[in-house]
Formats: sequence, structure tokens, C-alpha cells
Amino acid sequence: MARPDLRRNDEMRKVKIIKDYTMYAEGSVLICVGNTKVICNASVEENVPPHVKGTGKGWVTAEYNMLPRATNTRNRRDISKLKLNGRSAEIQRLIGRSLRAVTDMEALGERQITVDCDVIQADGGTRCASITGGFVALWLACKKLVDEGVIAKMPLTGQVAAVSVGIWEDEPILDLAYAEDSHAIVDANFVMTEKAEFVEIQGTGEGRPFTKEELNKLMSLARRGTGKLCREQRKITGDLG
Amino acid sequence: MARPDLRRNDEMRKVKIIKDYTMYAEGSVLICVGNTKVICNASVEENVPPHVKGTGKGWVTAEYNMLPRATNTRNRRDISKLKLNGRSAEIQRLIGRSLRAVTDMEALGERQITVDCDVIQADGGTRCASITGGFVALWLACKKLVDEGVIAKMPLTGQVAAVSVGIWEDEPILDLAYAEDSHAIVDANFVMTEKAEFVEIQGTGEGRPFTKEELNKLMSLARRGTGKLCREQRKITGDLG
Amino acid sequence: MARPDLRRNDEMRKVKIIKDYTMYAEGSVLICVGNTKVICNASVEENVPPHVKGTGKGWVTAEYNMLPRATNTRNRRDISKLKLNGRSAEIQRLIGRSLRAVTDMEALGERQITVDCDVIQADGGTRCASITGGFVALWLACKKLVDEGVIAKMPLTGQVAAVSVGIWEDEPILDLAYAEDSHAIVDANFVMTEKAEFVEIQGTGEGRPFTKEELNKLMSLARRGTGKLCREQRKITGDLG
Amino acid sequence: MARPDLRRNDEMRKVKIIKDYTMYAEGSVLICVGNTKVICNASVEENVPPHVKGTGKGWVTAEYNMLPRATNTRNRRDISKLKLNGRSAEIQRLIGRSLRAVTDMEALGERQITVDCDVIQADGGTRCASITGGFVALWLACKKLVDEGVIAKMPLTGQVAAVSVGIWEDEPILDLAYAEDSHAIVDANFVMTEKAEFVEIQGTGEGRPFTKEELNKLMSLARRGTGKLCREQRKITGDLG
Amino acid sequence: MARPDLRRNDEMRKVKIIKDYTMYAEGSVLICVGNTKVICNASVEENVPPHVKGTGKGWVTAEYNMLPRATNTRNRRDISKLKLNGRSAEIQRLIGRSLRAVTDMEALGERQITVDCDVIQADGGTRCASITGGFVALWLACKKLVDEGVIAKMPLTGQVAAVSVGIWEDEPILDLAYAEDSHAIVDANFVMTEKAEFVEIQGTGEGRPFTKEELNKLMSLARRGTGKLCREQRKITGDLG
Amino acid sequence: MARPDLRRNDEMRKVKIIKDYTMYAEGSVLICVGNTKVICNASVEENVPPHVKGTGKGWVTAEYNMLPRATNTRNRRDISKLKLNGRSAEIQRLIGRSLRAVTDMEALGERQITVDCDVIQADGGTRCASITGGFVALWLACKKLVDEGVIAKMPLTGQVAAVSVGIWEDEPILDLAYAEDSHAIVDANFVMTEKAEFVEIQGTGEGRPFTKEELNKLMSLARRGTGKLCREQRKITGDLG
Repeated sequence: MARPDLRRNDEMRKVKIIKDYTMYAEGSVLICVGNTKVICNASVEENVPPHVKGTGKGWVTAEYNMLPRATNTRNRRDISKLKLNGRSAEIQRLIGRSLRAVTDMEALGERQITVDCDVIQADGGTRCASITGGFVALWLACKKLVDEGVIAKMPLTGQVAAVSVGIWEDEPILDLAYAEDSHAIVDANFVMTEKAEFVEIQGTGEGRPFTKEELNKLMSLARRGTGKLCREQRKITGDLG
Repeated sequence: MARPDLRRNDEMRKVKIIKDYTMYAEGSVLICVGNTKVICNASVEENVPPHVKGTGKGWVTAEYNMLPRATNTRNRRDISKLKLNGRSAEIQRLIGRSLRAVTDMEALGERQITVDCDVIQADGGTRCASITGGFVALWLACKKLVDEGVIAKMPLTGQVAAVSVGIWEDEPILDLAYAEDSHAIVDANFVMTEKAEFVEIQGTGEGRPFTKEELNKLMSLARRGTGKLCREQRKITGDLG
Repeated sequence: MARPDLRRNDEMRKVKIIKDYTMYAEGSVLICVGNTKVICNASVEENVPPHVKGTGKGWVTAEYNMLPRATNTRNRRDISKLKLNGRSAEIQRLIGRSLRAVTDMEALGERQITVDCDVIQADGGTRCASITGGFVALWLACKKLVDEGVIAKMPLTGQVAAVSVGIWEDEPILDLAYAEDSHAIVDANFVMTEKAEFVEIQGTGEGRPFTKEELNKLMSLARRGTGKLCREQRKITGDLG
Repeated sequence: MARPDLRRNDEMRKVKIIKDYTMYAEGSVLICVGNTKVICNASVEENVPPHVKGTGKGWVTAEYNMLPRATNTRNRRDISKLKLNGRSAEIQRLIGRSLRAVTDMEALGERQITVDCDVIQADGGTRCASITGGFVALWLACKKLVDEGVIAKMPLTGQVAAVSVGIWEDEPILDLAYAEDSHAIVDANFVMTEKAEFVEIQGTGEGRPFTKEELNKLMSLARRGTGKLCREQRKITGDLG
Repeated sequence: MARPDLRRNDEMRKVKIIKDYTMYAEGSVLICVGNTKVICNASVEENVPPHVKGTGKGWVTAEYNMLPRATNTRNRRDISKLKLNGRSAEIQRLIGRSLRAVTDMEALGERQITVDCDVIQADGGTRCASITGGFVALWLACKKLVDEGVIAKMPLTGQVAAVSVGIWEDEPILDLAYAEDSHAIVDANFVMTEKAEFVEIQGTGEGRPFTKEELNKLMSLARRGTGKLCREQRKITGDLG
Repeated sequence: MARPDLRRNDEMRKVKIIKDYTMYAEGSVLICVGNTKVICNASVEENVPPHVKGTGKGWVTAEYNMLPRATNTRNRRDISKLKLNGRSAEIQRLIGRSLRAVTDMEALGERQITVDCDVIQADGGTRCASITGGFVALWLACKKLVDEGVIAKMPLTGQVAAVSVGIWEDEPILDLAYAEDSHAIVDANFVMTEKAEFVEIQGTGEGRPFTKEELNKLMSLARRGTGKLCREQRKITGDLG
């Protein structure tokens, strides 16, 4: 069965990463993956959370939020409900872990970088776009610290990028748009390095359990997708090696 | 004394209103006033607040928020503090009142339009940009209701636009950027119609009280500024009359 | 058309300011403007907010609240809803700005005065009564600091008083009671000094936009009203000059 | 040892109950017990809580709050901390239970009376003053319902009044002021009917456990105190029998 | 009339206190009183609350909570409602006062012990079980501090135990199960020492006021009940004298 | 290198599932996996969330919480911070998804089952124990519905059980205790059916990215562990097929 936007099963949507999207953040990008658009702003702060205070090491954290009308119907703001959305809590923890996995906290020194991922338009894959764009924002902020002589060398040990894959109409497909995601039987997100190693994997059998063979097929698609995303990132970051 | 960006005292910053900025909202614009950038999304909902339920009349409300890094240093999100910022509460009430002033609630019918104003970059005048852009978003949403036959005629009775004025270095100036605003002795916001009538006026003697003569000078500047803003709005809305 | 309580259009309601209303606050008054009654308590605290810490300068802030049954129907307490009422947030910011406008923060020294305005009965004009009464509470607290030798001289540079004015039944009127306020077409609040200068102006076209001529008439009324209020204040404070 | 205000050990402070203190509440009093002053407003609402809905029975509840500067040092408002003070929660549950104990819920009919007790000045015994004054406010509200023909007969089956007693400087004393209360070794509150029966008793050994003999002495004092308070109440309510 | 579980009126339910119930807390017990089961964990922390900081004295506090399905129907968690249950607030204040009454704060030294009482199954008398079990948990934690040489001597000056009593079917009964408690006309809780002195008393006329004679009968039952509970405690603590 | 408790790398800790642990919940178990102990209570409620109302289908949801002293140092309760812990939010979403994956919502009918997982002692693997025990609690609740004739057939389509695996000291190990988990380089949780299919997979490279080969080894361990857990479940549930 044809995908709604006629993509091949192993085809990513169009990806665009625009750097210096806002003017105050130390690192800022707008990432567009198809109709999904996320502003990723990396802010450097000299304060660190209690568990690293005095260790000489830094910290990277993330916050994730959607504008009320990033989706088809308006969602009330978290502050109206006085509760951080459970889904947002889960996602921002994932983004934070993913970015920390490629950060050398000693090289960063005792400071914190907060990466704010604000979704202005959501069409599936917002957490993956946040990780992929968030990495570039983090890289830009680190670059600034190096350029200004605050730290001696880039504290990033590799690239991370993320992509969603899933089983839809019984076929494994890459980079699900919302119309696909909402009917997928299996839904997974892979966070990978530029060397195709895993940083985070998450897979859910929404409609039914899945097999190891299916997982293997999804992994191959994810490797293909994150490879492309890493190439997009390098248009801004250059080769990290 | 010259203004930081060398504008004349009665000169507005460059204004740009981009329509259909996001794809789900019934009305959506990005408004840029110099470096101030606000996404204004108008959402139509069939639910109305209790005080108009059963009256056959509609309601217009607004919410205002800044991204954490819309400013020079990062602000914690409201949800982290579990409190709606007092300044935001004040501003969103102003935006709501301003938009309601030009809305014919009977013509709108028993439905609510919420105008979300999310500031992605702040350089002074964010509340004014929100009103000016919010009006266009509201107009687009109403237009859609008319085009779809949901309501019979446009429920907007006029345009509203807003501009900040102030006394800075002892001179009345128009459209203060942040660097000016933070040192202004008197600071005012005027919400006006295309006929140069007042919808809302707010003036504050930050550094000292001010006189009626000073207020008159500020009003003249505001009339000039809102006139220009109304012309920008009409590039999208056309003439409402 | 006659006003509900048969006042002339330019006539204030009866004003009474009772000093030392409660026994612990450094400054305390009950202000009655017609049936509107507000307890204003000024508390001196040696702690200051972060933005003035270490500057040697002081700070003045205000909090505004209504008892649940200050109005015709009972309102739930903010704590039951876990949200500071948006209207209260707006009003307490206005009171704070108004009082700071006549305070010499260097003369006050590095301490904070919080002026609590608790409305026990509301019949229109509660924000104005809070400012007018709050000024006297602030003056009493400052006087105590001077009398006790904590500070060398009174840190108040002038008086502030506030009055509401509006257009009701197409006529400009002074000091609106609730029955008038709820049907006013234009509604404004003026915070003025004893020299008839403006500290804050706020005007809203509730029913329709308003013209400069109307604004001028409202200003004249406001000048008259605040003049009377300043005379009432001086019964307690004496002449500040 | 002499009491700070030279009262006899079995002597109450001066009690004053002023009725119709505010103008909107169905029942309203200001009660003064020495320097302790509490506004008690009873509000009738046609909504009832879920557990009595549809039963034809009514409900009585209470809320207790102190103004920030009711005490010697300023307390932050609950809403600033987003938490109802634990002490307030405990006290308002006590007030509610005490008032319900003398209310015939069937005679009240399916409606709710909320008694708001707002302490404007606190000098010990605020919970007791709230109960004693709250009863009168409740009586006034019920009287209004009867007078307006909403209910057929008074739904109150007796009077309730409350007084604090304690052991201070090793002697049992009646009606503790704050200076006594803060140094009492044993501290108790008795809520009693006009027939000297118990509605609520609460006793705490603050400094040491206490004996049955001591409890008996405290009960006698409490009987004396509540007797006097019931007489004060009857100046407004007349004899209920 | 026979009690639902056929106990004599002066008969306690079966009591069991299991020590070292969880493995991390400095003191931990599970207390079962009939079907009521409460985990009491005492945690030693070197931080103290502001009001004892720098005094060399310690502090004891308590928190009380019920699992959502400790009762017949599921209760929403406090965090879902963002409000500490009023009943829990009242109870945890009672537990804290009761435990502090037998603690020598100087002997404890400047540290805090928090006693968490988590009800896993509720069948009446949960606050009393929390106090009785909480005392043992507190004793175990103090014992550990003595054994480790942190403090020189046991800082507990006596035992505390608590029991509920009430008037049910017009007869005074001891240790009410939920089925009795929910229909009791008078309901009281007594916190007593091993010497049968009172630490806290609380009595409520739920259905009607009560007399001194009734109170006396309830006291006798309570003395009997707490005597038995103190003996159960001593199986773990031994004789404190 | 030997594991702290000397287990083989592919060896689970001792598992015990005690049914009917509390007396009110429709399904209740205590699950112990080594020193990790979780109470799982399944509550049937006739109310359903809005998104299934009127569909005739049911819903299964979960809540996860730790007692304050389930861990080595005391954690403040969520309600003290007014925020649901982000980790808890993430975990309870995982538990809910896992249980829904084996529930036939049409067979359940329009009712909701909430599975509360309260950790009373935590030594690693609490989310996995919650899923494994939560499944049994859910099964017991469904069984009760069938036994009482409320629903016609068991609405569970299979078993789910979960286990943690990880790379520790460079070796893949099964069922990590806290001492291992806190130093693992790779950490994963597998939720599997009794047929060794995947319901949820989550893997994180805490210390470094990981390879497909490593993931394969972890999967084998997980299959072994969940197989054993499913056998433990069947001691209570019997064979579902």
C-alpha cells in the first residue's frame, strides 16, 4: 500500500536544519523534517545541578514542549493544568540522555548546557527531530565556548541523530509522519551515532507484539535514516573526527 | 542623542507579517517588528466559557508566552515554577481585551477563538507585536469561518494595532527596542483602531511622573505608529470597511 | 441620566482612611471609598529580592487579594484553584509600580516594604482604593523607620493616589461604583501625584473605542478626584513638602 | 504568677461580636476576643458537594485563613507557596465539624453554607473565635433563609462556642493570649454547646504529658468560658430553644 | 448489640509489630492492628528545619499517606490533585506532635528524624496505628544512633501509643474498625504514655454532643487499650525506664 | 569479575509473587525480585477516560510511585514538590503501554482498570517488577470480573513480563541489582510475552554507545529472564492459552 505522501518505505522526508535561528541562544537551529518543525536553542549557564557541583564536570539537559497549536487541535498549555505533560517528561528525559551520551563532561567543565526543544509544528517524529536538531544546537554552543577560549577543545565525542521507524500496513517503514504513526502497529525510535552505533532504542508494540526479525528490519531502516541525518548535521558541524 | 539603531524618534522598526505561518491553526501569522518575533495562532473551538454559554454569543481570549531563550538570558519555564508569570498574565489580559474590542460577539456566534502569542525572540514591544499580529490571526480565522459558511459575515468591526512609545534621554520616541525600553523614563503602550481611536492606553512613569503635555506628544507618535501598522495589516486583510 | 446613588458626575464617594487599623504591621490603614473597603498593611522586611541585593537600595512591592465574599457571589480562594487570579496579578503589579514611583530607593536603604491590600468589601474601584490607602500605609511604615532612627529621612518623594473614571450612559463620570463600572463603555484608572502629574494611566474601551477628547474629559475628572484623595491622605501624613 | 494582661486565671478577654459586618454575605460578623479579630462570612450556595447530591440534605463547610500581617511577622500567602498551610487545613476541618454538629441537614435542605473565617489580627485563640463567630454568621444566614421562606424552620439544633484553655506557669488558665499560648505546657480547645456538652475536644501536652486531674480542671474553665461566649452569641441570636 | 467482629466492647483487635520491615530506613516497622496495616519508616537526616538550625537541638516530624487502594474504593493520589489531602495534613501534624512529646531534642542533637507512615490497608484507626508503630520506628532509629556512637544516650523520655474509642450503638467501645467508626456517634483518639498520662486527646461528637460522663468512660477504655499497645511496643523496645 | 551477589551472568534473583496481598483491590499482589518489593493493586472502575467514552471499549492505565524511604536516602514525596517525578511519569507510561498490549479492550467492556505499583523497597529493576507483578494483579481483577459474570471471557490475550539486562564490567548480565545498575555501561529493559515476542524494548548507552551484537546478547538474556518470570506468573494465573 502506498504511503500517504507517496514516499518509498525506506525514504526520509525532506530535512532542513537552519542555524542561528534565534539571536540570543549560544546555539540555535530550526530543524524541519517534512512538516515537523522544532526550534532547538542551547543555553550555556554557569550554574550546575547539585549532583555535579564541585566535581569540575559539566551537565547537559533538555526541555521539550509543544506550542498549543502545533497539532491539529489545540492543546491546553501545561501551566493551565499545572502539570508537566507526562509525554513531554518522557521525551525530554530521552533527549537529555541522548545528548549526554556524546558529551565529554570533563572537557565541558563545570557548566550546564540546556537544550530547549520547542515544537512549533508537529507531524510525527518530534522527539527524533528534537534530538537531531538539538545535537546541532549543542555543537554550536560548544563551538562558541571553544572560540571564546572558555574551554580548550570540543567536548563532543561523536554525532547523535534519531529517527522513527515502524510497521505500518504490515510493512516496515522509515520516518513516520503523523498519519502513519497514528496507525502503526509497531513504533520505534532509534538514536544512533554517525558510526551506526546505538545510543538509545525504544520500541513499542502498539497493536501487537513484534518479533526479532521485525526488529532487525526496523534497525536497518533506522541505520539508513540516521546516516542521512548525520550527513545533514555535518553540513553545519563539518566532520567531527 | 542618537537612538542605538540610528532611527529617527518617530520612526518604526521594519515590520513584517507572514501569514499561514503554521499549518493547523485556523489563523496563523509570524509578526516581526525589528528583532521581535511572535507567532500568533488563532484557534476556533466550539466550546465557550461558562459566562457566555447559552447566550448565542462568542468569546475571544488570548494567551501570551515567551520561549525560555527568547531573551538575553534563559528564563525558566512557567511550568517549572508552577506559576504563570505575573507579567504574562497582565499581558494576555491586555491582548484579549484589545481583540474583543473589535469583535462583534453576536456575529461570531457561540464559539471561542483563542489567540496564542508565543514570542520566539524578544527585543522590546512584544505585547504590541502580539496585538498587531494577533489581530491578523484572528481575522484569518474569522475569514475561514465565513468562507466555510459557518458564520454569515465577518465579525470584526475594525482593526486594532498597538505600539509602544516612551520618553528616552528626555525625548519622546516611537517603538522602543529593548535597549531603549530598559532605560526609558516614561513607557506607554497604545492600542488603536485604524481610525486612530483608542482601544487601550497604558502609561507608566518608570523614572518620574509625567505631564499631560508629554502624554500628548506620546499620543501623536502612537497615532503615527499604529497607522503604519494598520497599513501592514491591510496587506493581508485588505480594507475592512 | 442620574447615577444610581444620585451623585453628580464629578463627585467622589465618601472617603475615609483609618490609620493603625491592625496592630502588628509597621503601617496599617483601612480605606473606605463608599462601600469599597480595603485593609492596607505595610510590612518592613530586611530581606530584599535578588535584583537589588548588594546595591544598598530598597524595594517596594504589593500584594492584592479579595476575601471570598467581598463580592456579591462567593469566589473560590486562589489556593483552592492553585492559581493566582490573573486580575489580581495585574492589579498588584500596578499597585507596586505606583508606590515605587514615589519612593527614593537609596533613602529607603537595602530593605523591602511589602504592602498587602486585602479587599474586605468590593463596590468598584478596589485597585484605586488600594493605591490610595497603600500609599498611607507605606508612609506610616517609613515614618516608623525614621522615628526609630533606622533611616535618616523620609524616602517618599511625593504622594500617589488613584481614581477610576469612565464613560457611562454616554457621560464621563468620576469614581465608578460597581453598578456603574459593570456597564461603563469606557473605563480608566489614573494614578496621579499631588501635583497632578501622571504616575500610571490605564484606559480601556470596553464597549467601543474612545477619542482623545473623551480621554481629556476623563483626565480632568481624574485630576479632581485624585486632588480630593491627596487631601484625605494629608489628614494623616501632613504636607510632605 | 500574674498573667501578662493581669487577668484572673478564669477570666475571658473582652468579647465583641458585630453583626452585618460586610454587606454581601448572607451572614456576616466580626468577632473580637481581646486583640484577636476574625471576619466570619456565611455564604449560601445552591450547589452541594457530591456526597450529599440528591439526598435532599444540606452541608456546612468552613475555610480558615489569616491575612499575611495578622501576626507579628509577615507570613507568605498560601498561594505564593501553592500549598494550603497544614495548620489552616487542620483548623478549617475543626470549624466545619463543629458547625455541622449543631446543624439539622434535612431542615437545611439540599444547599451548602460555607463559613469563611478570615483572621485580620491574631493574638491567640483564632480557631476558637472562628467557631464562636462562625456560629453566629451561620445563624444569620439560616435566619435569612427562613425569613425569605426558602426553608421552613431554623436548621440549628443548638449553639456552639469554643474557647482555649491551658496550663501556663503550672496553673490552669482560661482563654490564652498569644504570649501565654506560646509558653503553655498544655494547650487545649473545647467546643461546647450552650448546655455545656462537648462537641469537640482537643488537648495537647506541648511540654509534658498531662493527667486526668489537670484535664478536669481545664474542662471546668472551658465550661465557664463557653458559657460566657454563648451569652454573647445570644445577644444577636436570642434564645434558640 | 454485638460488634461486627464479635469483640467485647473493651477488646482490642489483634496487634502485631514487625521490626526491620524495610531495609534502608534507620528504623522500620510494619504495624498491623486487625486489618489496618501501616509501614512506619524513620529516617535520620542531618539537615534540620530553619527554626532549630544553630540551636543544637533536633526535630522530629511525620508524614502520613494512604496507598490509593488502601480503602474500599480507590482514592486519587494527592499528586494527581496537586493538593495534600486535608485529612492527611491534620493526621501527620498529630503524629508529629505525639512523637515530639516524648523526645528530648537536646539529647537528639541537631538532626531531624522523619517518620513516614504509609497505610497499605485501612480498616479504621490508621492514625493511632501510625503513632503506635511510628514510636517503635523512632525508637529503632534512635537506638541505631546510640549504637553507632552518634549520640550518647537514648533521647526518648517515654513511650507513646494511641487508640481510638467511641460511642457506637450507644455503647462505649474500644479500637473501632471501619464499619464501627463510620457509624459512631462519638469518636475519639487518645495518645497516651506508658504511665497512662495524656499526650494528645481528640474527641468529636459526630452525631450528637457528648457528656463528661461519656468522656470519662472513653478515657478508661483508652487507658486499657494504650496499656496493651505499650506492652506490644516493649516486645521490641524493652523497658525504657 | 564476580557479581556483587555472586550470581551467574544469566541468573535471575529470587522471585516471589504473593497474591491477595491487600484486601480491597480487585487484584492485588506483592512481587519481590531479590530485595526489590512492589505492591501491585488493580482497581476496577466503571468510569473511563474521555477518549474511550461511548465506544464500548475499556482502558488499562498504571501509576507508579516509590515510598520515600524505598531507597538508600529518603526522597521527598512528589506532593511536597507539587510535581510528579519525571522518572515516575516515564515509568508509569511504560507500565500502562505494556499491560494494554495484552488486553482486549472490547472484551473488557467500557470500564477502566488502574494498576497501582507502589515500590516499598527498591534494589534495581522496579519498573520491570511493576510490569511483571502488575500483569498478575490485572489478571486477578479480570478473573474476578469473569467470576462475577460482569464480563463473558478473560480479556487478556497473553502474558507480559519484564526484565532488565545490561553491560556491566564489559559483560552482559541479567536482572541488575542497584549496585550493578548504577555502574552499568549499557542498560536495557525488555517487556516480552510468554512467546518471547517483544512488547516494549528500551535500551540506553549510559557510558558509551553499543553495537547490534551487544544488543543481540542482551536480547537472549532477556528472553531467558522473562521466560522464568512467566513461569512464576503461571503459578498464580495457570496457563492462559
